[in-house]
Amino acid sequence: MGGPKIVTMTSDFGTRDHYVGAMKGVILGIAPTASIVDISHEIPAFNIAEGAFTIAQTYADFPSGSIHLVVVDPGVGSSRRAIVAASAGHLFVAPDNGVLSQVFERVDTWNVREIDSQLGLDQISTTFHGRDLFAPVAARLASGLEFDQIGPPIDDPVRLAPTIPSGGVGRVLHIDRFGNIVTSFVREDVGDSAGLRVGNLIARNWAKPYADAPGAGAFLIVGSSGYVEVSINCGSAAEAAGIAAGTKVRVAGC
Amino acid sequence: MGGPKIVTMTSDFGTRDHYVGAMKGVILGIAPTASIVDISHEIPAFNIAEGAFTIAQTYADFPSGSIHLVVVDPGVGSSRRAIVAASAGHLFVAPDNGVLSQVFERVDTWNVREIDSQLGLDQISTTFHGRDLFAPVAARLASGLEFDQIGPPIDDPVRLAPTIPSGGVGRVLHIDRFGNIVTSFVREDVGDSAGLRVGNLIARNWAKPYADAPGAGAFLIVGSSGYVEVSINCGSAAEAAGIAAGTKVRVAGC
Amino acid sequence: MGGPKIVTMTSDFGTRDHYVGAMKGVILGIAPTASIVDISHEIPAFNIAEGAFTIAQTYADFPSGSIHLVVVDPGVGSSRRAIVAASAGHLFVAPDNGVLSQVFERVDTWNVREIDSQLGLDQISTTFHGRDLFAPVAARLASGLEFDQIGPPIDDPVRLAPTIPSGGVGRVLHIDRFGNIVTSFVREDVGDSAGLRVGNLIARNWAKPYADAPGAGAFLIVGSSGYVEVSINCGSAAEAAGIAAGTKVRVAGC
Repeated sequence: MGGPKIVTMTSDFGTRDHYVGAMKGVILGIAPTASIVDISHEIPAFNIAEGAFTIAQTYADFPSGSIHLVVVDPGVGSSRRAIVAASAGHLFVAPDNGVLSQVFERVDTWNVREIDSQLGLDQISTTFHGRDLFAPVAARLASGLEFDQIGPPIDDPVRLAPTIPSGGVGRVLHIDRFGNIVTSFVREDVGDSAGLRVGNLIARNWAKPYADAPGAGAFLIVGSSGYVEVSINCGSAAEAAGIAAGTKVRVAGC
Repeated sequence: MGGPKIVTMTSDFGTRDHYVGAMKGVILGIAPTASIVDISHEIPAFNIAEGAFTIAQTYADFPSGSIHLVVVDPGVGSSRRAIVAASAGHLFVAPDNGVLSQVFERVDTWNVREIDSQLGLDQISTTFHGRDLFAPVAARLASGLEFDQIGPPIDDPVRLAPTIPSGGVGRVLHIDRFGNIVTSFVREDVGDSAGLRVGNLIARNWAKPYADAPGAGAFLIVGSSGYVEVSINCGSAAEAAGIAAGTKVRVAGC
Repeated sequence: MGGPKIVTMTSDFGTRDHYVGAMKGVILGIAPTASIVDISHEIPAFNIAEGAFTIAQTYADFPSGSIHLVVVDPGVGSSRRAIVAASAGHLFVAPDNGVLSQVFERVDTWNVREIDSQLGLDQISTTFHGRDLFAPVAARLASGLEFDQIGPPIDDPVRLAPTIPSGGVGRVLHIDRFGNIVTSFVREDVGDSAGLRVGNLIARNWAKPYADAPGAGAFLIVGSSGYVEVSINCGSAAEAAGIAAGTKVRVAGC
């Protein structure tokens, strides 16, 4: 649509080491005009669920046609498959370990192909597929490679347990920098007279903007991604609750 | 001027969460050829004064015509205004909470307009104006929207207390990664036979380059931004002084 | 080769302060279409050896013709020289303090020139040559300045002690985010029946991919850069060994 092809990057490589830089070098060697955008490289090491949350939250904010590289890959060098998924006009390049689960949860249809390893660099190390396999594949897609040239279609990509609440029990999807607790509940899941219990906290009051929040204590708010969040104004709800991502969240009756 | 339009970003969103990536996706969807440059996303959460320091220190290093997105926004969703300021050939897109104060302090003239919320995304969440309002406005300016199409002019943008020293008392503007204490004094504010007192430290000796600094102890130096800094060679002056940004700094007689 | 000129950045400036943003502003003012890529700004402050490791590990992943800005510069403002090195089709802009040592170790030939300070900004501060000297030089190279216009050739750039193992004793080159210990040994340096001793750890078993590693305990693996690494599956070898970069590593007989 006028601009250069966008390649986003999400990983657990951190920004201290040279790993992300190496991947960008490989991408620009193959696709010199690609526009590379970091989403996050601070997914906690090996934490597939956090990677799944992050890419699912963000990809739709990019224009259709974007290519999303998602490398949280504890099984690097094992027999886990490498895949490209096509969905909603976006392409996702990732190990087949469930890191695309929350993308699949949110769309009606998706197609997945297993990556032909010939699309990687000539030499593929056993420890850094981010640089040697996933980055080249993303760059080739940015340079015109078609989805159906990736490799054979598969219909059983690995998927994590669904995050959608059931029986009034959901999950903490994420705790953000401000200590906001992002739950897997949407507004309709929580009755009007009910609240949410998470760790040490019970939150019952609904606020719209943070600035309108009741003075002290935890409150509920529909966050920027559509999920119900438990927050404390100018403070960390996660700290007050004493919890981490993955913790169960329960609807609390009156 | 030959190159793509530059959009810089300064925020307290951190780089762990997906917030910055989401904003970049929105910008590139509207302005596909914009050149996005991060200044810092590690402004301490809700710390307007640190955001004000950071953008004022940096914008003039960018070419004229650059657009600077500054989102430190504890009042998101409240009735605080959203503004664009034009000054010295640069445009600044920010909440009206004082985060542009130090830009205004350093220039002779500026013009401010309140942002018409129709320039945001179709749906503006109550919690993430960075993505839903400020990013689209910056992108539209990068795509040709004129300053006077932003909304009505205003002449009373919120301004923080001035940082300029008075009566021999200034402020710590910033402590950098190396522990250098950036004060709000310029060279002329400090007498030749005087020094500066900050926290536990009194510094009297002036050094030019760090490498010429007197062996041990704190010294004074005119830093890269023109302010007097209190430093310790290969050590953290801030730690030795036991202070934080905002601390008072006093001229110390002989 | 079709794309814009690439300028990579490696420094100890961190990403919290505005220093890196200021350098990028200067680069884009001189070379508006340059493609700027961060390798790392989290080199530990003043740690030349870590900077040397990082750029040597990464530059070859970028296309030939790339310009690499490496600013770890404890001697800023002293009489240390500023240099550009040309090697293997790449250009390196750096202070002459050994930060390019590991690049020189890995190539057959290199040429170095001392930077004429007239190539910097009109005003060169004594504390921030990254912005005032190195960034403009990198940008001018990206805009067509030739290597032989940099300044006079020199043949004695500062070099750190070699990292190549000798007498069965090597060094820890780096500890990455995952706690992997990157040693300066290559596979051939370690006998088939021998292992490596580093801090509290002795590792004897060789693994190929991390996923095939023996259940518990430390193991040896040839890492993505060709060096032998000491690792623990899904754990931090560095923590188990109780060591830091620079620690000696010894071949351990059976």
